[in-house]
Amino acid sequence: MPLYRATLAYDGSGFRGWQLQRAGAGRTVQAVLESALARLADGGRVAVAAAGRTDTGVHALGQVVSFELPRDMEPSALSAALNGMLPDDVRVLAACRAPTGFHARRSAVSKTYRYVLDCGDIRLPQRRRFVGFIPGALDEVAVREAAALFLGRHDFASLASAGGRTKTTVRTVSRSEAVLDGSDLVYEVEADGFLRRMVRSMVGGLVAVGRGALGVEALARALEARDRRAWPAPAPACGLTLVSVRYPPGLDAVLR
Amino acid sequence: MPLYRATLAYDGSGFRGWQLQRAGAGRTVQAVLESALARLADGGRVAVAAAGRTDTGVHALGQVVSFELPRDMEPSALSAALNGMLPDDVRVLAACRAPTGFHARRSAVSKTYRYVLDCGDIRLPQRRRFVGFIPGALDEVAVREAAALFLGRHDFASLASAGGRTKTTVRTVSRSEAVLDGSDLVYEVEADGFLRRMVRSMVGGLVAVGRGALGVEALARALEARDRRAWPAPAPACGLTLVSVRYPPGLDAVLR
Repeated sequence: MPLYRATLAYDGSGFRGWQLQRAGAGRTVQAVLESALARLADGGRVAVAAAGRTDTGVHALGQVVSFELPRDMEPSALSAALNGMLPDDVRVLAACRAPTGFHARRSAVSKTYRYVLDCGDIRLPQRRRFVGFIPGALDEVAVREAAALFLGRHDFASLASAGGRTKTTVRTVSRSEAVLDGSDLVYEVEADGFLRRMVRSMVGGLVAVGRGALGVEALARALEARDRRAWPAPAPACGLTLVSVRYPPGLDAVLR
Repeated sequence: MPLYRATLAYDGSGFRGWQLQRAGAGRTVQAVLESALARLADGGRVAVAAAGRTDTGVHALGQVVSFELPRDMEPSALSAALNGMLPDDVRVLAACRAPTGFHARRSAVSKTYRYVLDCGDIRLPQRRRFVGFIPGALDEVAVREAAALFLGRHDFASLASAGGRTKTTVRTVSRSEAVLDGSDLVYEVEADGFLRRMVRSMVGGLVAVGRGALGVEALARALEARDRRAWPAPAPACGLTLVSVRYPPGLDAVLR
């Protein structure tokens, strides 16, 4: 059966995250996509793997998925057919045939998330679905120092929410950059993997340090504690977007 | 009673426009604002006038309203109190005391609307509430020529939808600028007043000319015809935003 890879964008506001849930537990991106694919597979189930299992309310601009289809379709016809069936809060941005063995999650080298937090007095209604909101000015120097703490290989157990299913909580962060843009904090982080709510916890840590509620050293100790009770509260889900996924050179085809 | 002026932003997606409707006919911005103000007036009705009576699904970044309050409040306390009561799809951006006789609509010299239309192949889910979507490339030169047609004093009867309540359909347009930005058409228009669906009709005309469905001369004749059956269909509401309102120098206080 031909194997496909597709890049998706979605507005996570109306979804209970990526992952299929038991019936009645809420609408998910995977369910919506698999139901469109089933129509292309004459009703048979098409199981879809995603690079990042985004949580409730989290958005994507570059989610990558892989699936096998029981029939051969031109990738452009496939993405047009899917966009014709999908609700308008999910779009297929591009699709291509994938080499044998490609798996959207297992083949991924790294993922990049972006978090935008409005720290001004008033959040514009137009932005409320896509930026977090915690009013109060932040100290940019302190925020950048805190962001640098996450770089490299660490045990991120302090930043993991219950409900994750990974065996190890060690991850390697290759980029961790925070910028203040007007009253927005824009945080981008790339890692080989993320624990549940890890980026939102990172942002929670940046905010605590940026407001002076916690020193950078205290945040470093909270990271080393490997105890999530030691860590500040996570930032709201709505500010988080899965931006892109990186694959090994041979698999990292340009999709559009 | 002290007279106030406030600037509002709202996401029009969840509203049946600005104007109060009869009970059960849908949620409106005016109703939501008046119900918050009533709580500050011990339950008495506070009638609010708005510069632009935006239609269903139309947004605002700079709607201006005026109202009298039976008690004196510091403008900053007033806007904080309102934002504490309003749903998060409406925000008061600023408030001030207004000079006697000020009326948000009658005192206005001009209003500026912006329309953003995505003409690409795929509209990002994240933009679907705030940009219109009509796929198909546009000819920028033709679009700019068409936009220039609207400048000056014209009878815009061809662009008015039924249901408007104005006696005259003559309006003076002081700015009418269309730019193509990637696959977006961004159109900004300032006039002393607008008929119902006039901006959306203007954009419908720009699209018809930009796609080559109609020549600029034919559009000019359709404008002169003063017959709305002669005019192309209006663009969707979601791409339209009331950006700002201008008042005479003496009344045009800087609000924030």
